[in-house]
Amino acid sequence: MYRPQIKVLDCTIRDGGLINNHYFTDEFVREAYRALSKTGIDYMEMGYRSSKQLCPIKDFGAWKYCDDEKIREIIDGIDSNMKISIMVDAHRVKEQTFAPADESPIDMIRVATYVKDTDKAIDLVKRTHDLGYETTVNIMAISKEGEPELNEALRQLAETPVDVVYVVDSFGALYCEQIEHLVKIFKEYLPGKEIGIHCHNNQQLAFSNTIEGIIHNANYLDASLYGIGRGPGNCCLELLIGFLKNPKFNLTPILKFIEDYILPLQKEIEWGYLIPYMITGILNEHPRAAIELRASDHKDKYAEFYEEILEALD
Amino acid sequence: MYRPQIKVLDCTIRDGGLINNHYFTDEFVREAYRALSKTGIDYMEMGYRSSKQLCPIKDFGAWKYCDDEKIREIIDGIDSNMKISIMVDAHRVKEQTFAPADESPIDMIRVATYVKDTDKAIDLVKRTHDLGYETTVNIMAISKEGEPELNEALRQLAETPVDVVYVVDSFGALYCEQIEHLVKIFKEYLPGKEIGIHCHNNQQLAFSNTIEGIIHNANYLDASLYGIGRGPGNCCLELLIGFLKNPKFNLTPILKFIEDYILPLQKEIEWGYLIPYMITGILNEHPRAAIELRASDHKDKYAEFYEEILEALD
Repeated sequence: MYRPQIKVLDCTIRDGGLINNHYFTDEFVREAYRALSKTGIDYMEMGYRSSKQLCPIKDFGAWKYCDDEKIREIIDGIDSNMKISIMVDAHRVKEQTFAPADESPIDMIRVATYVKDTDKAIDLVKRTHDLGYETTVNIMAISKEGEPELNEALRQLAETPVDVVYVVDSFGALYCEQIEHLVKIFKEYLPGKEIGIHCHNNQQLAFSNTIEGIIHNANYLDASLYGIGRGPGNCCLELLIGFLKNPKFNLTPILKFIEDYILPLQKEIEWGYLIPYMITGILNEHPRAAIELRASDHKDKYAEFYEEILEALD
Repeated sequence: MYRPQIKVLDCTIRDGGLINNHYFTDEFVREAYRALSKTGIDYMEMGYRSSKQLCPIKDFGAWKYCDDEKIREIIDGIDSNMKISIMVDAHRVKEQTFAPADESPIDMIRVATYVKDTDKAIDLVKRTHDLGYETTVNIMAISKEGEPELNEALRQLAETPVDVVYVVDSFGALYCEQIEHLVKIFKEYLPGKEIGIHCHNNQQLAFSNTIEGIIHNANYLDASLYGIGRGPGNCCLELLIGFLKNPKFNLTPILKFIEDYILPLQKEIEWGYLIPYMITGILNEHPRAAIELRASDHKDKYAEFYEEILEALD
């Protein structure tokens, strides 16, 4: 699939940060930045800009906050055309500040929101757009939303300066036909905006659903190295690059990064296809219960876990 | 997706046998048979009926040959409505014999073939059909076949008594649009026959491509427990059962089997999403080189491996 409008965003550090409280070594982030730049990725997401009042710095690594200075320190001296994005949760905005875009290493602010917090997301979009940033709104947990509420949120977003609106399958519950349906609705309600897609891999559908998004004209595609991310993780960046036929991409640098940096990390933290996440995915539930199970001493009691969740939903 | 014509075939023992030379304990096969029966799976494939002249019994476990007596011993005393299939390679038929179907525990003979061996496959189909078996032809390595040759093979198969013809993505190279194309061709050339689909998971597309097959009216679906199979493995049976809404299926027994039997096995033998298989998949190559790499002392040298294969193909 070669379509020059397609932009690939790597969320390795941001989504991976959810499983290690955003503690990556500087070397890890720097070498990821270097490898992603060499591969030709369009955007790298460094993490969140979280409130230090709501999320005390004693509890988290630097990529929970993504201070401009920290980002500058990491990318210093590396030749790159890659843009940088950070994410902000719409419902957790407090004292965070943003420099004007031309004084910041950050190019794009991505606002993660539930449908019910759309107004908060729009506030933040306007504020950061006025500072000169590219902006996106990422509508989370979309598999749980009623269509009237979703459509109303999209109608509101159509009136804002936001550049991209994302379908986010937070629970990894969607099948290809539902992705098709959602991307088509987004296209319909958001004329002139770009559509993005961010999929979770509970059912090994993150990559194929991203392809489904591409087929229906989503142009902003999230993926992470070896799929790293909370629970089952995300669409694998290496798969997506293998699929996209844009000659600007070169797979080798990220394969090297995976062998040198991701494999060792995988010995310390867990993500990927595991039955408990598969179960919450097929039942369209938050992975919370699966995460708890995996942290317990009965982490592989799949049958029992499945029966318990079924009973709780009954 | 609820369509009563859909039949699910578990190939755990057959495809899994390719990574352990078909040595499964009797307990493993027996408990798999019990769990699959309880879940409501339509067919269980026990293995191959290989020639003992071509494949000496000192080198392989029982499931390389699937003697009727061995199968009877395994299933004895277990209440089940599940049918049993075995596979035969069309190009490796020598002295193998088949009892009349009504004297055998086997219900279905599946003939695996390359397009070039279609005549041999048809011979075997006729012979086993006449003995009373259900028969299938599974066209392997289909991503490498030219369409004129494939169409000619399908034309020939249309004239035979074969019940089902399978699209087999041996190299895990196909994307959804190619699956759609192939299944539609099969439907067109094989009026009155059922179409089957067997996908490999090199690119984490085995499940989604199986769904794509279903959408285009493939009714015979191959999958294995936790995706076990050579290299990256297959479509995960647990995912497929989660997707199919036929109330006859019950997920719990196979989840229990996975936790009790598959997880321990996974500590001994390797399968699943691994970068070397991803690479052969995106390049539409046989996994041979990746299998060799994984058996070597540089099994995680992904970047080098990728560059070497690219160069060899240049």
